[in-house]
Amino acid sequence: MTEKFLLVEKAVNELVAMKKYNTLRDILTTMNPPDVAALFAGIDNRQLPLLFRLLPKEQAAETFVEMEPDAQEVLIRSFSDNELKEIVDELYADDAAEIVDEMPANVVKRILRQATPEMRASINLILRYPENSAGSIMTTEYVSLRPDMTVEESILRIRRQGVDKETIYTCYVTQGRKLLGIVTVKDLLLCDDDTKLIQDIMLTNIISVTTLTDKEEVAKMLSRYDFLALPVVDAENRMVGIVTFDDAMDVLEEEATEDMALMGGVLPSEKTYLKDSVFSLFKNRIPWLLLLMVSATFTGMIITSFESALAAQAALTAFIPMLMGTGGNSGSQSSVTVIRALSLDELRLSDLPRVIWKEIRTAVLCGAALAAVCFVKIWLVDGLLLGNEGITLGVNAVVCLALFVTVLAAKLVGASLPLLAKAVKLDPAVMASPFITSIVDALSLLVYFLFARLLLGV
Amino acid sequence: MTEKFLLVEKAVNELVAMKKYNTLRDILTTMNPPDVAALFAGIDNRQLPLLFRLLPKEQAAETFVEMEPDAQEVLIRSFSDNELKEIVDELYADDAAEIVDEMPANVVKRILRQATPEMRASINLILRYPENSAGSIMTTEYVSLRPDMTVEESILRIRRQGVDKETIYTCYVTQGRKLLGIVTVKDLLLCDDDTKLIQDIMLTNIISVTTLTDKEEVAKMLSRYDFLALPVVDAENRMVGIVTFDDAMDVLEEEATEDMALMGGVLPSEKTYLKDSVFSLFKNRIPWLLLLMVSATFTGMIITSFESALAAQAALTAFIPMLMGTGGNSGSQSSVTVIRALSLDELRLSDLPRVIWKEIRTAVLCGAALAAVCFVKIWLVDGLLLGNEGITLGVNAVVCLALFVTVLAAKLVGASLPLLAKAVKLDPAVMASPFITSIVDALSLLVYFLFARLLLGV
Repeated sequence: MTEKFLLVEKAVNELVAMKKYNTLRDILTTMNPPDVAALFAGIDNRQLPLLFRLLPKEQAAETFVEMEPDAQEVLIRSFSDNELKEIVDELYADDAAEIVDEMPANVVKRILRQATPEMRASINLILRYPENSAGSIMTTEYVSLRPDMTVEESILRIRRQGVDKETIYTCYVTQGRKLLGIVTVKDLLLCDDDTKLIQDIMLTNIISVTTLTDKEEVAKMLSRYDFLALPVVDAENRMVGIVTFDDAMDVLEEEATEDMALMGGVLPSEKTYLKDSVFSLFKNRIPWLLLLMVSATFTGMIITSFESALAAQAALTAFIPMLMGTGGNSGSQSSVTVIRALSLDELRLSDLPRVIWKEIRTAVLCGAALAAVCFVKIWLVDGLLLGNEGITLGVNAVVCLALFVTVLAAKLVGASLPLLAKAVKLDPAVMASPFITSIVDALSLLVYFLFARLLLGV
Repeated sequence: MTEKFLLVEKAVNELVAMKKYNTLRDILTTMNPPDVAALFAGIDNRQLPLLFRLLPKEQAAETFVEMEPDAQEVLIRSFSDNELKEIVDELYADDAAEIVDEMPANVVKRILRQATPEMRASINLILRYPENSAGSIMTTEYVSLRPDMTVEESILRIRRQGVDKETIYTCYVTQGRKLLGIVTVKDLLLCDDDTKLIQDIMLTNIISVTTLTDKEEVAKMLSRYDFLALPVVDAENRMVGIVTFDDAMDVLEEEATEDMALMGGVLPSEKTYLKDSVFSLFKNRIPWLLLLMVSATFTGMIITSFESALAAQAALTAFIPMLMGTGGNSGSQSSVTVIRALSLDELRLSDLPRVIWKEIRTAVLCGAALAAVCFVKIWLVDGLLLGNEGITLGVNAVVCLALFVTVLAAKLVGASLPLLAKAVKLDPAVMASPFITSIVDALSLLVYFLFARLLLGV
């Protein structure tokens, strides 16, 4: 598919250069909106309005929704009021709200002026909710049925109203706006008797979220129950909107991206890598780097205070990077595993003792294996092969013992910090490798010099 | 919701202890299958069959699908042939195939003996496809229509056949099993004329995948186009099945989990953290640790070869951890960002020059800021505050210059290695922090000692 897309992209660029607009229209109209949007992302801003006008009305609106905010702004500024109205009329309320949210004030004013009063009310409603809430990603267009309607009446209503609704497949049964039950189109179609009442076939065991539920929670629920949409209700159980599965997929992807960024010691960005400015990349990366560089003052102080030991046994210095590196890696292995398990709800806070016990046993296995290999490696490679005379049996023992203890400590710190972060309502993902590494670095050095003092008397 | 679930869990456990099975049945029947399965995961294996038999037939089958393989096996072994048949009859082909794939041979034989011939054929078909292919996650139950049917006939057919299909909302128009077009139930319901022919309203611009398309690719396409299902065709464009959005959500989640594991230097596991054995955790973690420990031999050799320099300027040793740590963090920031952008298809191989240019500018900003702060910190804290006499202006300059160059090198290595991995068809995620750190550790030491030699003459 990607290769096919690259070929189409090449062809389109050539047709644009040759101004073959009729051929272009023929190609574009056979494509899906996300692909057209991807194609337009590579087109010069001056050509964009021209190409966009080649699309038929419905495809134009669907493509518009899929485009990046900067391209959307270019287009809106090139539209006449009539053209803008045509696009806005085709939008779903949640998409319209998202676009309005990204545009500068003067563009927003133009959009709202072209919107119908209902659309304007919906956009305002959605934008009033906090950034990461269910209310902020819901759409207000759904099919509602009354409990006293028959199956036949309901199907008629769907046929009449459906064209403007984001999904018609799940319908919501309400009375005085209170949510009473759910009926799917499958239930309606497969019902053997068209005169049955909705209240007799509706599901009343409803799973709903409130307008303020965190959008990540909403996305996880949609994924857990395999629903097409979840109803969003207010504090009085009055129906205000729905969140559909496609928005849930986007949220899950966003959250995974955020977690990965945090794991790598980067503050999450709203923009894609190539669209992000260098200064924004800098801003998102420098805080962790600064913090961790300054915290490394402690490792420096530990080394300084053991300067005489290092002078007496110069060979010890050579193993500092290996020790710190292995400790850091062991710790981030545990932290990444626990962070992901937490975000998939596979772990709870109360599992802390089980996690600790599991990590201790795993760390003993890993530590023992590493220490054994390390002992043989130092003896054979550093000692015999490279002929380093400073490497005595004592030095070797200090390195391997310190390695074992470091792995144990690193895995315990790595596994428990994310759980503790969760306990104090922090995002566990901030407790990932860069943070763990800093702590483990200091720990491993302390352990190392302690063993050196005990066994070598330095 | 999680808190509510914990309360229900507590109540259920108490009711089980008091053998209040009627009350238990009343509670369980109001719950959704994924919640019942989560509840059963905490129940003792000896109690499990008893509780499971409290569920009505359809809910029992849906709950069964959501359970972990070990619990499924316990249940199957406790079922009579009749009970097993009732469950198997309620399963969709893709779920049945997944269960069969996880069970030991003698359990598989029992399941297949109770399945209908069509179900048996479907299971065998799905299991024949390679592990990560579209064929292996598709279901063979979909609604197919003929091009010469009218809208009315089509709706009738859906009403007759729909009950056994995983989704009825997207119907596939075929002739001699060749896929000709797609019609949604929305199209059918909103059509103003019931006598219209399917071939006149169907979408012919079909997006399909083949049985061998990678399942991650399939999931990304479902998410990109917001489809409920994608048709799976064989090499001759004959329809063989569909992949539905709920399976796509699971695949996306799985792939993100795998990427995160690799980023943390862990081989991905099929099991959840708590279900995974200690030995399996060990097996998935030790390869990277061993590899990286052994590769640290190089950093050791670099330090050994500069032993005399370190002896002459003992203060240099104290900054080794800070330098290596900051280098490692800078590198993993870039690699994690690029890896995620690659897996979201936001970056292509041909973007390598743009990535390099972006990283160089970001690295110069980060490096300059870090070096400046580091210079002031060393001068004030290590020099004036801690009174470390070894820290001369020369040493300070060496550290800060080395820091700047290290950050630059780390960001270039971190950003380009994942792209190069992609170029040679490796998973970019293996080029994440543990791997990058090892390379950057050696680089940073070399740069450090080089500056020491140039500026301090050691």
